[in-house]
Amino acid sequence: MTSELLSGPPVTVRRALLSVSDKTGLIELARSLHALNVELLSTGGTAKAIRDAGLPVKDVSDVTGFPEMMDGRVKTLHPIVHGGLLGRAGIDEAVMAQHGIGAIDLLVLNLYPFEKVSVDPASTLEDIIENIDIGGPAMLRSAAKNFARVAVATDPAQYDALVAEMNANNGAISGKTRFALSVAAFNRVAQYDARISDYLSSINVEDGSRAAFSAQANGSFVKVMDLRYGENPHQAGAFYRDLWPVPGTLATFTQLQGKELSYNNLADADAAWECVRQFERPACVIVKHANPCGVAEGVACGDAYELAYATDPTSAFGGILAFNTKLDAATTKAILDRQFVEVLIAPDYEEGALDYARKKANVRVLRIPHGEGRNNVDVKRVGSGLLMQTADIREVTREELKVVTKIAPTKEQLDDLLFAWRVAKFVKSNAIVYAKDHRTIGVGAGQMSRVYSARIAGIKANDAGLVVPGSVMASDAFFPFRDGIDAAAEAGIKAVIQPGGSMRDNEVIAAADEHGLAMVFTGVRHFRH
Amino acid sequence: MTSELLSGPPVTVRRALLSVSDKTGLIELARSLHALNVELLSTGGTAKAIRDAGLPVKDVSDVTGFPEMMDGRVKTLHPIVHGGLLGRAGIDEAVMAQHGIGAIDLLVLNLYPFEKVSVDPASTLEDIIENIDIGGPAMLRSAAKNFARVAVATDPAQYDALVAEMNANNGAISGKTRFALSVAAFNRVAQYDARISDYLSSINVEDGSRAAFSAQANGSFVKVMDLRYGENPHQAGAFYRDLWPVPGTLATFTQLQGKELSYNNLADADAAWECVRQFERPACVIVKHANPCGVAEGVACGDAYELAYATDPTSAFGGILAFNTKLDAATTKAILDRQFVEVLIAPDYEEGALDYARKKANVRVLRIPHGEGRNNVDVKRVGSGLLMQTADIREVTREELKVVTKIAPTKEQLDDLLFAWRVAKFVKSNAIVYAKDHRTIGVGAGQMSRVYSARIAGIKANDAGLVVPGSVMASDAFFPFRDGIDAAAEAGIKAVIQPGGSMRDNEVIAAADEHGLAMVFTGVRHFRH
Repeated sequence: MTSELLSGPPVTVRRALLSVSDKTGLIELARSLHALNVELLSTGGTAKAIRDAGLPVKDVSDVTGFPEMMDGRVKTLHPIVHGGLLGRAGIDEAVMAQHGIGAIDLLVLNLYPFEKVSVDPASTLEDIIENIDIGGPAMLRSAAKNFARVAVATDPAQYDALVAEMNANNGAISGKTRFALSVAAFNRVAQYDARISDYLSSINVEDGSRAAFSAQANGSFVKVMDLRYGENPHQAGAFYRDLWPVPGTLATFTQLQGKELSYNNLADADAAWECVRQFERPACVIVKHANPCGVAEGVACGDAYELAYATDPTSAFGGILAFNTKLDAATTKAILDRQFVEVLIAPDYEEGALDYARKKANVRVLRIPHGEGRNNVDVKRVGSGLLMQTADIREVTREELKVVTKIAPTKEQLDDLLFAWRVAKFVKSNAIVYAKDHRTIGVGAGQMSRVYSARIAGIKANDAGLVVPGSVMASDAFFPFRDGIDAAAEAGIKAVIQPGGSMRDNEVIAAADEHGLAMVFTGVRHFRH
Repeated sequence: MTSELLSGPPVTVRRALLSVSDKTGLIELARSLHALNVELLSTGGTAKAIRDAGLPVKDVSDVTGFPEMMDGRVKTLHPIVHGGLLGRAGIDEAVMAQHGIGAIDLLVLNLYPFEKVSVDPASTLEDIIENIDIGGPAMLRSAAKNFARVAVATDPAQYDALVAEMNANNGAISGKTRFALSVAAFNRVAQYDARISDYLSSINVEDGSRAAFSAQANGSFVKVMDLRYGENPHQAGAFYRDLWPVPGTLATFTQLQGKELSYNNLADADAAWECVRQFERPACVIVKHANPCGVAEGVACGDAYELAYATDPTSAFGGILAFNTKLDAATTKAILDRQFVEVLIAPDYEEGALDYARKKANVRVLRIPHGEGRNNVDVKRVGSGLLMQTADIREVTREELKVVTKIAPTKEQLDDLLFAWRVAKFVKSNAIVYAKDHRTIGVGAGQMSRVYSARIAGIKANDAGLVVPGSVMASDAFFPFRDGIDAAAEAGIKAVIQPGGSMRDNEVIAAADEHGLAMVFTGVRHFRH
């Protein structure tokens, strides 16, 4: 659908209305507009700031003949203002003249800081309600609807480009720019109203308490890029980020080289990065089909990689590799000379590492700076619905572990148990992880019964030529029967970490004691489906 | 945070403003308000409808002294209206009197049908832009902000309760009702602005075309229920539905009996239901940990269940069972006498089936009526981001299959291949499904390399005492090497369905020919992670 609306002629700005809560860049903008002979209208604090800067400005109340009232609740909700924004070129001139409505060609407006006030613990409900801007969104929406004639700026970040365009065009703004600004304004209003709905619909009217999950959940995401396709080639896909990405998360990545990222690349990159950033020592995580197929901590990134790779070289082929330390040149060379890699992720790279990576120009190399943040909320789509939950960011500490067997794990076993536990958290359920000396020995993933995950971990360890006897085992959920422990003991496992909590815990503990195993309970489960 | 704002006194409605795009229930409401001595204000078509019904009504333009103009673009954006909505009890009376502003106590308003017009292929961009309501949201937001004094209705479905409350209280509306209505109004505005942002931010200004994924994606979901916890007990969770759930999808379920549904119940119920509703013949799907562990078609639900169960009785314990036909009493008894069930799903139940289910009062029994709809969009949460894709609803038809081996599959094998293909689509990748006579023989799920999924399918079939020789095999993605085919042939597989498209397809086809297998390519992949 093409439309003349999208290719409207440039409009020379003769009159602008400025009303901003955030005064950043205001005076510079007002000065530029004044230099272009633009008449300035304004309200309250904005008018005062412009006047104090020595620039001429007219109060909206003088134009409407109606005073600001009700502590600012009503100031611009007037047909002189909205007619000035909504009046159509070539259609409404006569009625505007008849009612003394002057056209407004540019609106510069940002909204009362509802978002900020509503998350401030010091705010009262009265403060928060008062920060629901009424006049602002109304003007933004009027101006944005009438993009055929009017331009609207909602963010100080837009001012420079706007002034540059006007300076280069004798004060005129193109149709394309007006449309882009209109979309930005409607996007902003949607974000603003989303947060108001989130906030108010979380309140329990009986006692003023707030629900963890609001009655209406409103999400606003910004597209980062279209993807070539989705999880499969017949599906279309795109990658979006939160309005304010949290430091340390995937969405803050920079791609330094390589082919376009795919849907599955990004999904696996997230799993690999979230898994590896748990570790304090240098670590490497290799992910394939959403599961870690090899994880190790080392003295440095080099030995961490070698150990992670050795867990399952077949699966590592075409994998997503993530490191939690600056990647050095030697390790980069070792990786790229040996195996096909889809994505390489690290918080930083040595210059030599990037030089070497350039020889394999297809490999996607991502930098994700470390940061303290994590997702608050996780979602899963189901038929016409959404399952929403707080993210699984629970860390189990050494002090929380409860030894339930006659034998307690040694210090080394405890280290390995906690290592295996952190890996198991990222393996699809049912998850069983065999580990030794801070490296995975076998990973059993995604099975419908726990005992098969244990068997697969053992089969894979044997196939990779790794020695199971002396290893430890982590299970993401409790063992419902003793069979899993019996099988583990037979394979040579010496210590076990698991949540506990089964009806048959006694039986399971007895099995461990019988085999001379040490076992600890975390009291925490980590299903991940 | 408690607040007096939430426990405000009842307010007797003396003056109401009605302005509705949807006239449903308008006259009855106006009549009821008139009978309660409420003065009626209105605009345009709403005023005419009320007047035509013989009720007294005053035009807003008579109150403001300002005419409707610009084809209705400006009619209520006036301080007399907004002051009437925003004026605070006990604070603003003097200024209202001074400026001739009469209080408005009730606003009844619904918005221009932007949503409807914007999805109508016959609409021009001009039509769509004109259906962005400006005055409506402004009034809704004013009234909703001032819930301390004003009530606001946005939906004809609210009228009856509102009138009943007023009739029972001499025309007064309680503080709690006003707050609930305010939240509903802000929710509605958030939905409306979300759709405008979705629409406008999808437009390519160069040619007026629309992107599949808009530059800002805005979601609005309605909470169905809080869940006891999320995927794990330390996570909080809730279940939301789309604003307009699609017939046939999970969100349209009714729970007929049983314990509260959990997060994992709902996730697994969705997988089981979406898998079973693919089949035309009576079918049963058993899901455990997000994967089908047994699937079968039968003559009726009873034999379908028996065959599905036999695939993996261990995993079926505590499973989610879904049927695509009315569930009969005998099958219900057979299931519940034999095994622990988390959730039972069917489009309908015989009376006797429900009678029997009541004996196991904990079992969750869901009815999901059949319907033609499916999700359009699927999402996956990553660190501070969202992967969005069109849902995987691609069906492969018999005609699309390409026989690539010397031997073509028999009619029976083709039936089984298509059956296995439909199951594989719902098994986590890498997925391998062995099947025969419309039932699964072994399911290999969630492995990081394809050859292990094939091995697991074989191991599980043997453990269940099922005969692999003579079965067929489905693979959700291509075989990268011939080893998967060699292993399958050794196990006795006679026919294979897979997407094809590997660099080594020739080698894989040669392997199949060598073993005397029939193999068909779908040209379609079904990764599901």
